[in-house]
Amino acid sequence: MLQRCAYSLGHGVAKTGSRAAFSLMSNEPKEPKISSSEIPGPKSKKLLAELDAVTQSSAVQFFADYDKSIGNYIADVDGNYFLDIFMQISSMPIGYNHPSMLNVFKDERNLKALVNRPALGSFPGEYWPQKLRQVLMSVSPGLPNVMTMMCGSCSNENAYKCLFMSYRRRQRGDDAAFTAEEMASCMVNRPPGAPDLALLSFQGAFHGRTMGTLSTTHSKAIHKLDVPAFDWPAAAFPKYKYPLEENFRENKAEDDKCLAHVEELMQEFSKKGRPVAGIIVEPIQSEGGDNEASPYFFQQLQRVAKAHGAGLLMDEVQTGGGPTGKMWCHEYFDLESPPDIVTFSKRMLTGGFYHNLEQKPREAYRIYNTWLGDPGKLLLLEAFLEVLKQQNLLDQVNSVGAKLKSGLHDFERERPELLNSVRGRGTFLAVNASTAEIRDKIIGGLKKKGILAGGCGEQAIRFRPSLTLEERHVEIFLDRFGQVLNDLK
Amino acid sequence: MLQRCAYSLGHGVAKTGSRAAFSLMSNEPKEPKISSSEIPGPKSKKLLAELDAVTQSSAVQFFADYDKSIGNYIADVDGNYFLDIFMQISSMPIGYNHPSMLNVFKDERNLKALVNRPALGSFPGEYWPQKLRQVLMSVSPGLPNVMTMMCGSCSNENAYKCLFMSYRRRQRGDDAAFTAEEMASCMVNRPPGAPDLALLSFQGAFHGRTMGTLSTTHSKAIHKLDVPAFDWPAAAFPKYKYPLEENFRENKAEDDKCLAHVEELMQEFSKKGRPVAGIIVEPIQSEGGDNEASPYFFQQLQRVAKAHGAGLLMDEVQTGGGPTGKMWCHEYFDLESPPDIVTFSKRMLTGGFYHNLEQKPREAYRIYNTWLGDPGKLLLLEAFLEVLKQQNLLDQVNSVGAKLKSGLHDFERERPELLNSVRGRGTFLAVNASTAEIRDKIIGGLKKKGILAGGCGEQAIRFRPSLTLEERHVEIFLDRFGQVLNDLK
Repeated sequence: MLQRCAYSLGHGVAKTGSRAAFSLMSNEPKEPKISSSEIPGPKSKKLLAELDAVTQSSAVQFFADYDKSIGNYIADVDGNYFLDIFMQISSMPIGYNHPSMLNVFKDERNLKALVNRPALGSFPGEYWPQKLRQVLMSVSPGLPNVMTMMCGSCSNENAYKCLFMSYRRRQRGDDAAFTAEEMASCMVNRPPGAPDLALLSFQGAFHGRTMGTLSTTHSKAIHKLDVPAFDWPAAAFPKYKYPLEENFRENKAEDDKCLAHVEELMQEFSKKGRPVAGIIVEPIQSEGGDNEASPYFFQQLQRVAKAHGAGLLMDEVQTGGGPTGKMWCHEYFDLESPPDIVTFSKRMLTGGFYHNLEQKPREAYRIYNTWLGDPGKLLLLEAFLEVLKQQNLLDQVNSVGAKLKSGLHDFERERPELLNSVRGRGTFLAVNASTAEIRDKIIGGLKKKGILAGGCGEQAIRFRPSLTLEERHVEIFLDRFGQVLNDLK
Repeated sequence: MLQRCAYSLGHGVAKTGSRAAFSLMSNEPKEPKISSSEIPGPKSKKLLAELDAVTQSSAVQFFADYDKSIGNYIADVDGNYFLDIFMQISSMPIGYNHPSMLNVFKDERNLKALVNRPALGSFPGEYWPQKLRQVLMSVSPGLPNVMTMMCGSCSNENAYKCLFMSYRRRQRGDDAAFTAEEMASCMVNRPPGAPDLALLSFQGAFHGRTMGTLSTTHSKAIHKLDVPAFDWPAAAFPKYKYPLEENFRENKAEDDKCLAHVEELMQEFSKKGRPVAGIIVEPIQSEGGDNEASPYFFQQLQRVAKAHGAGLLMDEVQTGGGPTGKMWCHEYFDLESPPDIVTFSKRMLTGGFYHNLEQKPREAYRIYNTWLGDPGKLLLLEAFLEVLKQQNLLDQVNSVGAKLKSGLHDFERERPELLNSVRGRGTFLAVNASTAEIRDKIIGGLKKKGILAGGCGEQAIRFRPSLTLEERHVEIFLDRFGQVLNDLK
């Protein structure tokens, strides 16, 4: 699926073969190194006080040294080097200071594309059509069009608008003009111009924090408290028993129960005059706890959406770009047709969404904003995809992920009182701790041993390493993880 | 107000004194040059067909050549050079290929800050506190804190959330914890956790296109059609008679009428159980038609907000960063205290918002997202602000703007059947055509003569040049403008 991106803006995106990659990796520390007696260390603490004087900074863990960070290792200002398996909340695709990424803007034409940032919807650069085609479209999940955006939230917000617009167009007929009543009523936020339509999302979902996406986010109360929301339905999302192969029947029943809930909510909202224009779902609920669902669930969900004339949006903001071992996680689901919309951001470096032609607005300025993305980010994506292809990183993700998952399975068998429900695909893996407190102790213990990991949901540890993670990194992780579990007896 | 930004990430942001600026300007074409018989020309048309095959592109005017564009001139792929007084919808602060901007990422540490893009809320780089303080805080409009974001819509969305959170905190008391009922109800989008609160905006306003901001946008129906919206009030915004000095009494009455409408709506929404938590306003309504309001109007509006316990958000996304002749347009209003929140983006290159401590969330992860802005954009802003200060660009904007405004006044006196209501501050100016059709003819005629201008509202032409616009550019513009008017007899 991934084609060669031969076109370059200028003198060519730096070609990084295995030699450069080897040299990068050989510059990595051999193992994590912890120098400060506390984390955050004294320099981080001092900087935190400075930062908090000018901005909300309660979530800061430490201050990084991005000059010294390299490959899979993040350096902090106190001389610590962590093996980073969280990678900026899953948003650094091939690690720190990758030479291919550093080379992108040494090309003068690329630099000019970055600095002369256009209003892409009105005055795109000469390079833009070819870049869209040869970079983003080269990894399209079977969808013919793409829109670029700035971040995951904006990608979802604009994709939601496409779902509403296409739903209304199907209602009024493809050639019907907007009525005077629609034109006037939308200006004061009232139907029929601002119609009473809903989106269906899932309990535990995370789709963003702007007000439209936040109305479809249901992962943690602190994200939603005090913010008005649209009265839209949230269906139950499957909660599986693990290991999957031993619990097939229960998990299939769980799928059917959740699908029935979807159906029920769609009928309920249709009856109360607020029909569901689209269903929004993550292939793996990430922020909400790395909750998987089966190919069967997604196949049936797509059928329900089609039966109700609703669009299906697959939110691949966290799963997209390779960490599951495929470019897009939903490729595992064998859907009968691609989802209507697939949104992306994070590892893809640029936000945006793929869509079918049904979702393409017919009129100018409906899906539009000043920047509509950022050419600089697309150029970085181009460099990342070159590396992904040249180094067969999807293969690497699958083999390295298998080793990591196998190691996690060993630990859950050894310490069932601490760990359960190892799950995931590629290196996009998770394991539950038995309580939130133990989860936090494990993540804290790992950090003291030089492993930077992330949590999600109530009690999960999530793995979001760079696609360049190797077996030797997994060995280091498993060794330190074992030590942390031993300390928790 | 603007302090020297002495700190640099690495070997120093390029110092661009008047000599470099002179050299840049001397590389500009002497005047516009139109080579193609049509605009868009044949190469642009071919690229447009390519682009439309993969993305919605109905708003594209032409394809630019960003390697050849220079200073105040944008080059297109058909060999045309336009004097650009629209500047990417007001988002290029100092023109194309400014040497200071091109130099930013030639510094290796700056390049690493760009490429190693962190999750700024969790793992900021060592440089971040100082950069925030010395770049963004050096031009703060009297507010002690700042949050960075990606774009104008996201800045407003997150600022709206601050308004809601601070309003609810005032209601429940500073030390009160969230109740179990709030925690549970917000997860299903219901009060009290997702409270029934409103924001008041103005007819003709534009604050963005995501679903929260779109509910406060009321400029054009095409932006809003088919998208569900919050039922929030939109008050009348002053519509002035020009020239202002001859219509003082009528315009003051207009102010009072609009202020009474604000008061009335606030009481109405309070009575129906959806109190107004914040008032959102642009210092000059930009997309909606360059509608100004007086210092008196804004002073009174702030008093109304305070009397109702609502926050006041000044949206300086289009006006901020110098084009009005002050760093922030609302500095003209002599408010008794700064607005509670001031949002920015576009010319500021990074999105974000300044706020007072009342608006600072007390808890982590409430105003948060993966990237929380982009260090690369802050570094470009640093370079822009250095140039702004070293070359006294605010002074230049005021003197060049005065010449432009005077020329426009001459034309409106000569051709009152075509033009009226010249208005604005600095080079942030506008003039109305007598009809939408004439406005479009003027903008089309200017383009054929090599001037790239923009429209707004129903019949306005808006001026959004680079801050580096000089008197000689104004002379070229006025000459071509006169020719276009002559052709319209």
